[in-house]
Order: sequence, then structure tokens, then C-alpha cells
Amino acid sequence: MRKKISIIGAGFVGSTTAHWLAAKELGDIVLLDFVEGVPQGKALDLYEASPIEGFDVRVTGTNNYADTANSDVIVVTSGAPRKPGMSREDLIKVNADITRACISQAAPLSPNAVIIMVNNPLDAMTYLAAEVSGFPKERVIGQAGVLDAARYRTFIAMEAGVSVEDVQAMLMGGHGDEMVPLPRFSTISGIPVSEFIAPDRLAQIVERTRKGGGEIVNLLKTGSAYYAPAAATAQMVEAVLKDKKRVMPVAAYLTGQYGLNDIYFGVPVILGAGGVEKILELPLNEEEMALLNASAKAVRATLDTLKSL
Amino acid sequence: MRKKISIIGAGFVGSTTAHWLAAKELGDIVLLDFVEGVPQGKALDLYEASPIEGFDVRVTGTNNYADTANSDVIVVTSGAPRKPGMSREDLIKVNADITRACISQAAPLSPNAVIIMVNNPLDAMTYLAAEVSGFPKERVIGQAGVLDAARYRTFIAMEAGVSVEDVQAMLMGGHGDEMVPLPRFSTISGIPVSEFIAPDRLAQIVERTRKGGGEIVNLLKTGSAYYAPAAATAQMVEAVLKDKKRVMPVAAYLTGQYGLNDIYFGVPVILGAGGVEKILELPLNEEEMALLNASAKAVRATLDTLKSL
Amino acid sequence: MRKKISIIGAGFVGSTTAHWLAAKELGDIVLLDFVEGVPQGKALDLYEASPIEGFDVRVTGTNNYADTANSDVIVVTSGAPRKPGMSREDLIKVNADITRACISQAAPLSPNAVIIMVNNPLDAMTYLAAEVSGFPKERVIGQAGVLDAARYRTFIAMEAGVSVEDVQAMLMGGHGDEMVPLPRFSTISGIPVSEFIAPDRLAQIVERTRKGGGEIVNLLKTGSAYYAPAAATAQMVEAVLKDKKRVMPVAAYLTGQYGLNDIYFGVPVILGAGGVEKILELPLNEEEMALLNASAKAVRATLDTLKSL
Amino acid sequence: MRKKISIIGAGFVGSTTAHWLAAKELGDIVLLDFVEGVPQGKALDLYEASPIEGFDVRVTGTNNYADTANSDVIVVTSGAPRKPGMSREDLIKVNADITRACISQAAPLSPNAVIIMVNNPLDAMTYLAAEVSGFPKERVIGQAGVLDAARYRTFIAMEAGVSVEDVQAMLMGGHGDEMVPLPRFSTISGIPVSEFIAPDRLAQIVERTRKGGGEIVNLLKTGSAYYAPAAATAQMVEAVLKDKKRVMPVAAYLTGQYGLNDIYFGVPVILGAGGVEKILELPLNEEEMALLNASAKAVRATLDTLKSL
Repeated sequence: MRKKISIIGAGFVGSTTAHWLAAKELGDIVLLDFVEGVPQGKALDLYEASPIEGFDVRVTGTNNYADTANSDVIVVTSGAPRKPGMSREDLIKVNADITRACISQAAPLSPNAVIIMVNNPLDAMTYLAAEVSGFPKERVIGQAGVLDAARYRTFIAMEAGVSVEDVQAMLMGGHGDEMVPLPRFSTISGIPVSEFIAPDRLAQIVERTRKGGGEIVNLLKTGSAYYAPAAATAQMVEAVLKDKKRVMPVAAYLTGQYGLNDIYFGVPVILGAGGVEKILELPLNEEEMALLNASAKAVRATLDTLKSL
Repeated sequence: MRKKISIIGAGFVGSTTAHWLAAKELGDIVLLDFVEGVPQGKALDLYEASPIEGFDVRVTGTNNYADTANSDVIVVTSGAPRKPGMSREDLIKVNADITRACISQAAPLSPNAVIIMVNNPLDAMTYLAAEVSGFPKERVIGQAGVLDAARYRTFIAMEAGVSVEDVQAMLMGGHGDEMVPLPRFSTISGIPVSEFIAPDRLAQIVERTRKGGGEIVNLLKTGSAYYAPAAATAQMVEAVLKDKKRVMPVAAYLTGQYGLNDIYFGVPVILGAGGVEKILELPLNEEEMALLNASAKAVRATLDTLKSL
Repeated sequence: MRKKISIIGAGFVGSTTAHWLAAKELGDIVLLDFVEGVPQGKALDLYEASPIEGFDVRVTGTNNYADTANSDVIVVTSGAPRKPGMSREDLIKVNADITRACISQAAPLSPNAVIIMVNNPLDAMTYLAAEVSGFPKERVIGQAGVLDAARYRTFIAMEAGVSVEDVQAMLMGGHGDEMVPLPRFSTISGIPVSEFIAPDRLAQIVERTRKGGGEIVNLLKTGSAYYAPAAATAQMVEAVLKDKKRVMPVAAYLTGQYGLNDIYFGVPVILGAGGVEKILELPLNEEEMALLNASAKAVRATLDTLKSL
Repeated sequence: MRKKISIIGAGFVGSTTAHWLAAKELGDIVLLDFVEGVPQGKALDLYEASPIEGFDVRVTGTNNYADTANSDVIVVTSGAPRKPGMSREDLIKVNADITRACISQAAPLSPNAVIIMVNNPLDAMTYLAAEVSGFPKERVIGQAGVLDAARYRTFIAMEAGVSVEDVQAMLMGGHGDEMVPLPRFSTISGIPVSEFIAPDRLAQIVERTRKGGGEIVNLLKTGSAYYAPAAATAQMVEAVLKDKKRVMPVAAYLTGQYGLNDIYFGVPVILGAGGVEKILELPLNEEEMALLNASAKAVRATLDTLKSL
């Protein structure tokens, strides 16, 4: 039987994730949204590209959670953007309500699925999804680090004048501003990136990466990034469906690693069919630990806000 | 040197064409739009997916035609949608002005490019682009038939319960409503589709194909199709850049074929590095010729309107 | 869990099938041969290409059937070539003994597998494999038609000067000389091939296809074809593993179709996760039926020889 | 126009390189060998897989250098294996004669090509090819390090239980036994491999890599590796044809780098359309420099033997 992937939220990140996934022919795709017509229209449009691209996966749109039953992976992209006048707490509340609604409906229908969260605030929403679903923690994860790493790698490749295929990077912590860059763990075909790029220039690249989401928002003005976020998500889905044992940064549930407990936080993991199959504990130096703790503090604060609602 | 593709118009069809093309690593991509920021933002976002997907092509956004210089292929997706109260003539005038502006700026900078038009009314805009560019007619073509055929093939595959990879179809004429279906030239692994689908059901499928664009608009409500249109366009770009000699329906300039002259019209061609390398003349029966002549009449009427402006 | 494919016979067809399959990342591959070292060596060599090509499938070589347990697909390529002085009966006997040995060991360990036979005489060996395995007939099939069709399509593409992607062809019957060509069911993007190639030239192409295997043997002198046979086999494996519902000619068990009974014979089928999901009955004309019956007679004769041994 | 790649030598490495390249649809392929029939047979067989795999590149076999004219890349795989009773000098002489014959015929016909040498002794043959062709040194390179690195990465992925996609490694020096491993420059998603594998185990992996070619020979008994060597070669061809700026170890001509002069030696480079676009000078420590100098000494000795013949 073909694998099945359900994507909750048919906005740009959701539908572009469907695009990347369909092109890889990884499995049938269900695109769900509460808006009537939109998931159906986008799914049909994408499906109509299949004879051209040669992918034999069924892409369907729906407003009905029943259609997501027995998914192997559930991706949640639903979330509201921050609107003028909205406090940070308001935003957390709105998105928590959305997450609760999505997970409480989708999870029971696909009890063996891996859930990949892509909405913000990422670490808190992933925590909430784990709680609401009641799934084992290793099967509920958040996407953030793969995207941040992709941007970082892109900027490094541009600066060094080398193939993007040859740039590797690990980073940790929260998304964007709360990211913990690890230049020590950034290499080009195994060679430290410092052999290619001077420290001050690399610091600028780190800073650009931190603000990577904002850079796209500033350019688009009326929207935010979706190509790279969707590609990052699709890569996580592929790692799970093909049991690839990818070494990636994902928001995973910590039980003491890096001195952190009962928190979802961006760390390097081995990602396979079972979700997070191993959390990797890197030997961080003092400076890196300080950054990590600051990031964890910010993530914890959001989580506390969430819990207090 | 890498190939270069410029896409004029950074709306959904334009940027999704960039998406399909980047994933194929066919060449560097320039996304141009007059709106400031949008082409830059979409291009950067797409480029930031490159380390994940492993494509080494540079994707850039611009508002400046100079950046499109020396393109191997130019895709034009710019066009206005019909607004309430707008007459058909008004729409033709608006889009003709846009096409003139695009082609007169882009064509001289890329004198050896193949131009692929994707805006509406397709056949008239392609005619205009050929005129404005002064390019040999075989290097100015329009995309319509590949999209219509893709929809038709999707519906056939769904109905017959077979792989989309095995459904082939040729059709002719204008886009959508003006399409000339050729069920005789629709096969599944070489077997006539009539062996799989009853005539009345096939007639429904033809009808659904004709209205295929409208079906998506009705679902999305605030937009129109872009995944399949973009995939169709990308396949034409690939056929040119890889000199694949694909047999596809494209809007080509006719000089007597099918009894038509001095008109751009959807016909089967061999598409390669030189653009339209051969126009195929199928032996149509009376009924098919009648449909074709009706379609040609509609296309000619639009062309006359264009010329009269 | 990853899919698992076992290939019995590590000769060129077997190992090249592994090559095509690994590159598609369809599942883990076990290459088995009775010769010690060869399957291990080829498997390790192929596996060492994986970081370059980016496929995460384990490729292992073995002499032990236990390693094939729980395969999703079993491909049998083992067989002896005809040696000087060997009668046709001798050859059938030798290969029947090999087939019996392979199937009786492999089938019980993978009771839910689809078995794809690739050894000669193809239809008889497939019949034998079905008998020995005791599997439902739809899960035991033979590869021959996809290869013949691929050669035929190649020659058509060369002659017509068009992309190989656009040439479709269906044919039936036994392999090579016993093939039943169906020029009526050969199209280029849905257009009958007769619009591109004159009848006498097409007859030559049919004849070249019939002798396609011999053409390669004559060139290589000390071996026979393996790239295209392996690609054809890999495509059947993919159709099963991805449940693609491909419409292909395969050696399938007939129960009255085309007037034939209790015989494996090349016919168009829908190939999916369940193996042969449907046998397609084409409306053949008198001439085609005569060719088909002659082909069936030859296949039946070999089968009778097999049964008499 | 399509790119053109000529492969001199239709043995297993040569024809399997053609296989990897054809599947990537990078350009037309000419397979040349002095043996009559074999290159024609293998090329035709591979070409007959094209409708199945959907690649539109012409694959042809020939005994005539004229057919290689205007190639973009020339790959030389021709070479004799060491036979019993043959001294090391004898082997160098035989292969030098073959290299001279190949290059003196092929190079003048494709004056703008990049030449990739794949025969042994690799560094000496690459030196000779540069001399005989008279090409700028950056357009004559040797393949060895990509293969060694691929084996090393495979063993690391197996040991660490991670995706081969995430293992990067740089190494230097001669091929196999003369290889200079650089465990400091081996990472998994940017994380030093030492975080995954203990030093003594890593030392065993390095040793296995050194003997990687021999391991395959010992298993196959009557042949040597070709899947991974061909994949490594194909990746270099792709880097050139797509101007990918890959960071890879290749045998490049040194003019003082690492203290070495007038020698072809395995070093990290940036590989693009122009061949070696930059040689990267890594800051080696004392131990690494000692290994490198020993390797260089061995390579220099072979070169001296070559020059003395």
C-alpha cells in the first residue's frame, strides 16, 4: 500500500509542502483546511501536474478530518499570523487553539503517525501537540532547524562560491532569533567553513540567518517565506517515510539532554521511521552553552505563557 | 556555462514555474516583475531551498530587464485577470500592452532565446510577441495544449484506474473552451482509450477538461490554477534546453497547415533546441476539422480584435 | 519499514537490476547467488556508490536464502545460457532445475512477495515458478514484454526523430522471435506511429525488435544484453512497490483470455501492489489473432516439453 | 545543443560510467573501445533502456575516435590490469602506451574538453595525459579521491547508523594505499565524526578504506570494482557539465601547494565548468603533513619511473 501523508493547513507552506512531496512520489497526499474549496482546488491543480511530472500519487483536498485517517505522517502548518494590535500572548492563545483543534481531530484517526509541527511559536506548539495527541514524544517533532540550517548553508555557499550540495551545518535552539549557531559544526565537504570564510563575515552570515524569515517578509511585504520552509518539512517527511536515519536539527522532547528537561527544543537527532530515534548530545563549549541556555530560556518563557493560558 | 531562463511575471504561475525548473537543475533562473521586492523575495526563498533539494542553480529576483540578458529561454506569464466591468476588448488591450512592454524590453537582450508565452488570450499574445520581438516564428511559442492535455490525461487515469505515466493524449486548437479534443489520439500505453472508457463517459471527461481552468477558479474563489500550468510550462522549457524533440501540442505559427495561415494556433509539434522544429499535420476527419475550424475562428476573432486596437 | 527486494542471480542482469533499483531508492536490496563472493562483492561495490548518489538503501550480497526472508518482491534472474551441443530440451531441463531450486528456497521465506521471473524460456519458467511457489497466480509474473517494447520504442524514436519519452507501444506474446507486434497500438504522444513511419520501414523495425536480443549478442560476442533487460525488470518492481497501476505487457497466467487457458503468456495488464491486478483483453483483428495463436503454440510447446521432463 | 561526453574504454568502469551518466540525462554519450562490437553492443543495450527510464540522450558505441569530436568531457578508463609475472614497471609502460594512444587521438578532436583520467597508476597517467594533450593543466584531472571518500563515507554511515547523505569526508594524496585520511575533516551533518565513532574503530575504517579496492577484488576474484568508481567519475563529469563548483578531492596539478611542484596529486579543489577552478590548501598538522609527504613520495616515484621509460 502507498504511504499516506496528511497536511493540515492549505496555506502556502502547506500546499508547497504538498508540491515538494508529490514531486518525490513519496505517497498519497491529503491537504486539509477549514476553508471550503481551497484545499480541493490546490490539490486538484497539483494532481493535474502529475501526468507531466510522472508521479503516481493521489493528491486530494478536503475539509474533513475523516479523510486523513491512517496517515503515516501528519504535518501541521495551520496557524494565524500576528495581526496589528495583537499581543504576543494573544498570538500564542490563537495558535494554541488552532493546534488543539487540529491535533485533537487528526491524531486519534492516525494513531501510528509521526506528527511534524510547522506552526509558531514552534517549540511551544510542538509541546502542545505532544500533550494533546498523547503520542510517544519521539513521534511528535517540530520543524525549524532544517530551515534555519538551509538558509545558513545557502549564504555560506554564496559566500564561498561552492556548491550548496557540499555545505553542511548544524545548529540548535529555537527558530530564527533564538537560534544557536554552531560555526564549529559547519563544514564544506568536511572542511571547517572557517577555511573558506573569515570570522567577521561568518558572523554577518549568522546574523542574516537569524533574520532570514524577516528578510523574506520585508521583500514580499504581504506574506512570508514558504518555498524553503516547505522543502525543509518535506525533507523531514521523507526521512521518516524512507527511514533514512538523517542527522538533522529538529525540535525534540528533552529529558535531561543539555541540562534541559520537559521541553521541546531544537537539537540534532537521528530521524527515521520511528521519528526521533536518537538525540545527539554535542560537547558544547562555554560560549555555545551560554547561547543555548539563553535560547532555552526564551523557549521556556513561551511555554510557560502557553501553560498559563 | 549554465543555461539561463528568465521568467517575466512573478505571480503564482511564474514563481511556480521557477519552482519546477529549479528542482530540475536546468539552469540559472531570473524571476522578473515590476512589483518591487516580490520577485526578490520569492527567488531568495526558493534559492534557500537549494541545499535541501541539492540544486546548484542560482535563482534571482529583479525588477530590471538588464538582468535577463543572454537568456536561453524567456517565459512570459505577466498578464492582468479580467476584472468586473471589463469588456473582453478591454482585457485584450491591457494584456497586449503588458506583452508589448515585456517583449520589447526582454527580446533585444536575449536575441537567441526561445520565447514561451503563458498569458491570455494565449494565441493572440503569442502572435503579438512574435511580432514585437521580430524573432523567427519557430522561436516564439505559446503554452496551452500541454496543460489541457495534462488535465485530460489526469481525468482519464482516474477513470481508468491506471498510472498517469501511461496515458497519452493529443489535442489541438485554442485553450480551454476552444480546445479541440482528439479522443482518437488518446491512448493508454498505446491502447486506444476507448478500450478503457465508454464514449459517454469520455465525453464528460472532455467536457471537464474544457472547463478545467474554471473548475479550479470555482474552488479557489480568489485565484486560478498555477501548479499544472507551471508544470506544463516547465516541461516546454526542458524540451528546449535539453533539445528533447518532444511531441507536444503548442501554440505555433501556421503557414498553411490545417488550411490555416498567419495565425498562432495549438497544433502538435516537435519541440527541441530550436523551438518548433516541425509542425505535425494529423489526418483529421470531418468532425474533427469542423471543431478545429470553429476553434480557429474564435482564435482569429481575438486576433482581429487585437489588430484593431 | 523499508521495502525489501531480493534478486536471485548476481549475473549482469541481476546486478544491473540492483543498480537501477538502488538509484531509485525503492528499498533494501539483497543480491543472492550460489557463487561465493560475487554477490557480496557486487553488492558492496554498489553500496559504496550510495554516498555519491545519495540513496539510503542497504545493498547486501549473500549465498544464503535466509537473508531474503520477508521480501516484498523477489526477482529471479538465474539461468544457464545454451552451450554448444546442448539440445533445446537439455536447456529447458537445466533451467527448470535452477528455477525449482530458487523458488522452493525463496518463496516460503517471503510468502507475501510478488515474484518476477527473468530467466528463459520465460513463459515456461514463470509457469514453473507459480507451481513450485504455490503463490496465487497474480503474484507470479514474467518480464519479457517491457523489454521488447522498450527496444521497439527506441527504434521508433530513432526513426521518427522524437523523444523516447513520447513513444508508447503495446505488444504481446512470447519474447523476441515469438513476440506479437501490434503496430496499431503504437503511438507517439497518442498519434498513431503510422503518421510518422511508413509501413515497410515499420515492418523492418518490428523485425529488428524481434531479433533485438540477438543483435546485442552478435555485437558483444561473449555475452548478452543486460542494461535494458534490467531496466525493464526494475520498472516492474517499481510498479509493484509503489502500487503504480502501470499498463504493461507481462507474462501473466491466462484463464480463458484470448482463448488461452492454463498458460503464462505476454499480455497487457495493470500492474500494482497486488501483482497483476487486471488482464486487459484487446480486440485483436484476424491477422493479430493468427500471430498470437502461433506465438501461443510455441509457448505451449515449450511448456509441454517442461511438463514431460 | 546537447552536451557530449566521450568515454574511452568500454570495460566495466567505462560502461557503468555511461550508465550513471545516461540516467542523469547530462548529454549524449560516446563509448569508444578498440575491441570491435563491444562498445556498440553496450551502448545500444543502454540506449534501449532509455524509453523505460525516460532519458533523451543518444548513447553510441564506436571504434573510431572521429566520433568523439567536440566532446565537452573526455573520460579515459582504458588500461591493462597487472598480469602474473608483470613487474610494476611493465605495467606502467603498458598503461602509459595506452594513455598516449588514447589522448593523442582524442584530445586534438575536442580541444575545449575537460579530460578526466580513471586509469592506473592514476596520478602518473593524469600527468602523462596533461603532457600529451597539451591542455591547460586545470582541464586535465584524475579521479581517485571521490571514490576513496565514498568508501570511507559508506563505512562511517554503516558504523554510525546514519544516512549516507549526511556523511562528508575529505582526504588527500594517492589512491588506496597511498591515501592520506583526514579524520579531522570528516563530519556528519557538520558534526565531527569523532562524536559518533571511537578513534580505534575509526582507524579500522580508515584501514578498510585504504584496502577498499582490494576488498572488492578479493570478493569478485575475477574482476575489480566498477559501480562506485563509475559513480565517482560520473559525479565529476556532472560537476563540470553543470558548473556546480563542487568541493571534491581530485588529482590536480600542483605548483607549490602543500610544498609540492610539477606533480599530479590528490587535493581538495573546486570543480566547475573550467575543470579545477581552485586548489584548496588545508592547514595540515605535522602528522598529516608526514602522511602527505610519504604519499607524494610514492606518487613521485611512479612518475619518475614513467619518465624514465
